[in-house]
Amino acid sequence: MSGIIKCLDNKDLTRREVIAGAGIAIAGAALATIAGPSSVSTAIAASKGKSFGLKKIDVEAIGKKAYEDYGKVFCAQTVGAALVEQLAKEVGGQWKTFPVDALFWGHGGITGWGTACGTLIGAGTVVGLALDDKKVAERVVNDIMAYYANTNLPVYEPKKVIIANIKSKSTANTPLCHVSVGKWMDKEKVKFFSKERKERCGRISADIAVYTAKLLNQVVDGTYKPGHDINAMTYGITTQENCNECHGSNIPKVPGS
Amino acid sequence: MSGIIKCLDNKDLTRREVIAGAGIAIAGAALATIAGPSSVSTAIAASKGKSFGLKKIDVEAIGKKAYEDYGKVFCAQTVGAALVEQLAKEVGGQWKTFPVDALFWGHGGITGWGTACGTLIGAGTVVGLALDDKKVAERVVNDIMAYYANTNLPVYEPKKVIIANIKSKSTANTPLCHVSVGKWMDKEKVKFFSKERKERCGRISADIAVYTAKLLNQVVDGTYKPGHDINAMTYGITTQENCNECHGSNIPKVPGS
Repeated sequence: MSGIIKCLDNKDLTRREVIAGAGIAIAGAALATIAGPSSVSTAIAASKGKSFGLKKIDVEAIGKKAYEDYGKVFCAQTVGAALVEQLAKEVGGQWKTFPVDALFWGHGGITGWGTACGTLIGAGTVVGLALDDKKVAERVVNDIMAYYANTNLPVYEPKKVIIANIKSKSTANTPLCHVSVGKWMDKEKVKFFSKERKERCGRISADIAVYTAKLLNQVVDGTYKPGHDINAMTYGITTQENCNECHGSNIPKVPGS
Repeated sequence: MSGIIKCLDNKDLTRREVIAGAGIAIAGAALATIAGPSSVSTAIAASKGKSFGLKKIDVEAIGKKAYEDYGKVFCAQTVGAALVEQLAKEVGGQWKTFPVDALFWGHGGITGWGTACGTLIGAGTVVGLALDDKKVAERVVNDIMAYYANTNLPVYEPKKVIIANIKSKSTANTPLCHVSVGKWMDKEKVKFFSKERKERCGRISADIAVYTAKLLNQVVDGTYKPGHDINAMTYGITTQENCNECHGSNIPKVPGS
């Protein structure tokens, strides 16, 4: 038997991993039974309150605000606030009183632990609050994760640079703050506590706010189509896709495979 | 010059890394200048709404609910909902209408990408919404992250097992879902899409909900004292603490060190 589990940086997984891969269709069926779509329905039924609602929002204004506020607040908050400000304007209601400061903790991969980039926590929070259909919200957030991991960032070019001029872009191949910012620091040859790194994170805040706004507008227009597959279904475990970057040649076997 | 940067699994960092470590005091000062306490103050001033408020909550009831609901919803949501239900009862106000379904996206390290365990996103969201003082919220969330990473989990012992009997506990040394659940699966010898793994995540949901409730009650009582240091200040980059688990002997140098 031969075959490969797709890992972005791994071309030579062993036969045992391939067998584990062949079991993923079964795992998919198991997901539906154990904790899948029925759970989503239950989740909706169990809601204590309705979503905050959604209308078309100004993508350019959101990118500009997320970038410009980064110097005052951190990543999760600036992304969340930029989106919430527009939603408060267009939709009103609970968006007008939602305390965006509450997202402060998401910075640096949650209080500096280097896990998911805080921009993704800010974006996820707003998407979750905006959409009643949690299956759609799931796919929108999943696509934002994939965009962050697979795009050469930052894309955003400010009309007026606020903190520092920077020259590098990098593709993280992960949504993890530590790895993402570390790769960029290495390319730019700067420390974490530098003005250049701060400028980079401000621009990436704009990138994620802009991409989130675009997808939300597609949902409003009825043109949104999920892009990235669900990683847990593809790999048989919750994961990013660059297996070898942490595992080297020693990717643990899936027990029972 | 000799010395070691503390990494939980790394006893032999090179001289260059040590030099980088010696620079952390400077980095700390830089943090205060570049993006530190002044940003926190600005964040508070920029709030669009007040916090939802906090009173003493029933720790045992929160753990029970987080565990029992895990079969119906995922990690971020069950932790968030268990805490929100008690806060709605004790505080009322905006807690009563907050849509806990909005936290669904946090599951599996954000839609199954294996980043921060969803329990931590549920907990962080509630802590952020509960506290006006974002410096305190920051430290509470940081302590929850450290508890998750450094504790042999699950601790929670249900009075009535709901999904499956399990025998293993494991210390993740990380807040990352992928690594945490992978280590436990390896010890228990089960797949991700198994009833045993689901039971484990239900119990850990209870653990994080309980620990969060305990810390919030300490804040109400005025007895809360921050425990874990801020990783970005200790290491000079946003990070978890088990450097070698991903880096092996090839930990990248801090540029400019």
